[in-house]
Formats: sequence, C-alpha cells, structure tokens
Amino acid sequence: MHERGKLFLVPAPLDFGCDTAVPIAEVLPEGTLVAAARLDHWICENAKSARHVLKRIGELHALAAPLQQQHIVELPREVHKKGDHTAGFDARPLLAPAMEGHDVGLLSEAGMPAVADPGASVVRAAHALGLQVVPLVGPVSLLLALAASGLNGQNFAFVGYLPQEQVPRGQRIRELEALALRTGQTQLFIETPYRNLALWDALLQNLRPTTRVAVSSGLTLPQAASRCDTVQRWRDALAPVGGKTPAVFALGA
Amino acid sequence: MHERGKLFLVPAPLDFGCDTAVPIAEVLPEGTLVAAARLDHWICENAKSARHVLKRIGELHALAAPLQQQHIVELPREVHKKGDHTAGFDARPLLAPAMEGHDVGLLSEAGMPAVADPGASVVRAAHALGLQVVPLVGPVSLLLALAASGLNGQNFAFVGYLPQEQVPRGQRIRELEALALRTGQTQLFIETPYRNLALWDALLQNLRPTTRVAVSSGLTLPQAASRCDTVQRWRDALAPVGGKTPAVFALGA
Repeated sequence: MHERGKLFLVPAPLDFGCDTAVPIAEVLPEGTLVAAARLDHWICENAKSARHVLKRIGELHALAAPLQQQHIVELPREVHKKGDHTAGFDARPLLAPAMEGHDVGLLSEAGMPAVADPGASVVRAAHALGLQVVPLVGPVSLLLALAASGLNGQNFAFVGYLPQEQVPRGQRIRELEALALRTGQTQLFIETPYRNLALWDALLQNLRPTTRVAVSSGLTLPQAASRCDTVQRWRDALAPVGGKTPAVFALGA
Repeated sequence: MHERGKLFLVPAPLDFGCDTAVPIAEVLPEGTLVAAARLDHWICENAKSARHVLKRIGELHALAAPLQQQHIVELPREVHKKGDHTAGFDARPLLAPAMEGHDVGLLSEAGMPAVADPGASVVRAAHALGLQVVPLVGPVSLLLALAASGLNGQNFAFVGYLPQEQVPRGQRIRELEALALRTGQTQLFIETPYRNLALWDALLQNLRPTTRVAVSSGLTLPQAASRCDTVQRWRDALAPVGGKTPAVFALGA
C-alpha cells in the first residue's frame, strides 16, 4: 500500500489580470516557492493561469517536472459559478493521485485557494479521505485590506459580493452597516473591478455620514493604496477606486 | 517641510512562544524582509519580542540600524487588554517620527498586526494623519486555518475569544452554530493555548452532531496539523489540540 500524498494549498500572487506583474519572490516566501516547485499534480481554477504561476516559480526553483508534463486538472465550471458550498460537488475523484501517493497542489488565480475563491470542496474531500492538508503562506488580499483599514480586526466578517441591482444592494449595505454598528464587527466585501465605481456610489448614498469606509486597491502592486475615512469626508473626495484594479472594501464604526 | 514617512504593517512568524523556531525566510517573503530591514522606527506589542524578530531579519538582510539603535515604542497596556476599539487610545503621538519623514513599522508578536492583535489604533491614527499605510505579506493564522478547514471561504467571520465561564461559553457556541447554519457563514475563533482543551470539550458538548468543526494547530511549524470533521465523529476521536500550541477553531455547515 502506498503512503498517501498531501494536499498543499498554494497561494498565488495578486497581480492576476493586472497590467503590472509583481516579482513572485516579493510576495511568496521561500518555503512556499520550494514546496510548490516540488509538486507535479495540481487542481486549479484555470489551467492556463496555473501554468503561468508555475512558470514564474520555475524561474526561481527547478520544477519537479517540465510545464508540459505537469498533471493539471481544473475545477468544474459549476463550482466557479455557484461556489463550492452550493454546487454539491464531490471533489474526491480529483484527489485520486494523492491516494496513490502523489502530493497535490491546489491553486487559484490570485491569493489563497478556498478563501473568496473556489477550492473548499477539494479541501473538504481531502479531509473526508484522511489526507493531510498543508496551507502555505502567501498574499491574502482580504487580510491585507483588513489590517490596512484600521477598522476592528478582533471581530470581522467577509461577506463576498453584494447584490448587483440597486434596491437590494442598498438594502444589503444598510443591513451590513447596522450589523457593524450594533456588534462592532467590521464587514468586508469585494466586487468585480468594472463594478467598483457603482458599488462606491452605492456606499456613499446608503451609509450614514459617520460610518467609516476603507478601500484597498491593487494590493502588493506598485500602485497599491489603502485608505479609510468617514462617509462624510469621502463624499468630498475623489473615489479611491477605478474600474480595472481589484479592490477590497470594508465598513465599520 | 519634510516628506512624510509611511506606516508599514510587518507580519511576524507564528512561532512566538513555541518550542520550535521556523526559519524566517520560510514564512516571510523577500519583499517583506527587505522592507522591514530598511526601517529603524517601530511601534510594537512588546519591545523584547520585536527586537527578537529584527535580529532574525538581520541575519538575512543588513538592518538600517543596529538593534540597540532602533527606535522601538510599545503600545500601552490598556490597548493590549481592552483592544484598540474599546480603549479609546489616540495613537497619533506615536506616529510623530512618520510626520518628520521616517518610515515606521508596526509589529505584533505573531502574525499580522491589527488582525486579532493590537495595532488597529495605530493604523487608524495613520489614516487620520494622512500617512500612507502599506500592509506587507506574511503568515496570518486565521486565513491559513480557514483555507485548510474546507469550510465556506466565501462567507466567514472571526469573532475573537469566546467567554471563559461554562454557561455563557455554551450559549455563545450555540449562538455561533445557529448563525453558521442559518447563513452559511463559517465562524472562526481562538483561545489561549492552555484553555484549548476546555474549549474543545465545550464545543463537543454544545454543538449538534452534524455540525463541522475544524482545528488548525501549530500553523507553519513542523508539527502543524489541520483537521475538519463532524462533531459526531470528533466525539469518537482524540482531541486535536493540546495545551501549549496556538490553535484556530472554526465551525460551519
């Protein structure tokens, strides 16, 4: 009987889809680069972008196998769309190589897999199969944004995307504000970059003047910016987001 | 007039207070090490442990000033005890060096400052003074634990410490479970290591058999372990925590 492989959770740089590339050693520690270079079985969000990350790692550490010989499988589309927790996807078959003794890497397009990104179904399947799960250190935009906000970091929530339509979005914003003011819990959320400005306008329209809003955009990139101020003061300022750079939003007391 | 300095949020390794030390380059990327080595003004949780982290960084990159000549100030005790958000502490005077043009580092004893740790008051003061805030990449135990849990990573909350007394602790556990089951939001929390086992017992006593509980202990250390299972199965297993190693707990559907 083979010894089983482990599932490594491999974070990716945050420059996916951005104009500027960050040198990968700036944001991934040596321990993560070495562990990732050793792997040649991958489960990923997108095979093309996984190969691109592997290529960048390979420029610093010899890969266990050439790019063309890496075993890379993609998570199915329904997991991308619905999320791991509503798609009812059984990821155990994807972990067959680990059951045969191969270490397997889980990789998303940016940041930590399974956090605000697909992959939790794979981690769950690994636990069900009794496989060891090893999360590796790397950039996580949500936590960088939280730390840089100055909002309460002892009690916080990430709630994903807000509704796109105006009325339910406004309702959701006021609901999150009420929760933050009542409990002191910082509320973090994200948006697809091209909707950043619409979300920003909705925040300024719906929140109370004294509520604090923080935005981090382009985290780890040269143009990175993190700011936090009251809604009142934001109303007199330029929007701190554009339509191209990924941003993380937070509100709190 | 001087150009103002920036506030850098510098993450520390997660081995604080542990028997084993992790090589610092394993968990802090080159970009973080270089940025930290350039600084000689610090605001920290504890000056002694800050010097210890700087010594470890200095073994890899020449420090801007010898350890004895680093300017290190500690956050006041009341911020440690009550948390930045209830102590009503005005941290602006601590940032005087930044107003005079010095870059300043914020450092906690383990992990990311201002996340489940003191420091948010300093970040808030930096925003009030119009200083640039730069969060650097490093290990964040909460997010490593969340990713390794396989629980919902699209919607999650960190709620800090649970009450220590049996009755309110049981109530809080059932309240968090009800919230997680109703909304799908994973609930993360921590405990002082010597109370880990008492918390574990309370979780198994108070949660429903089908609820999932995840524990990550000793993250980034050689003995790191991340597991997740239902309460029912945990009741037949050994406790996955001891009384010495820091652990992060999570529960979800």
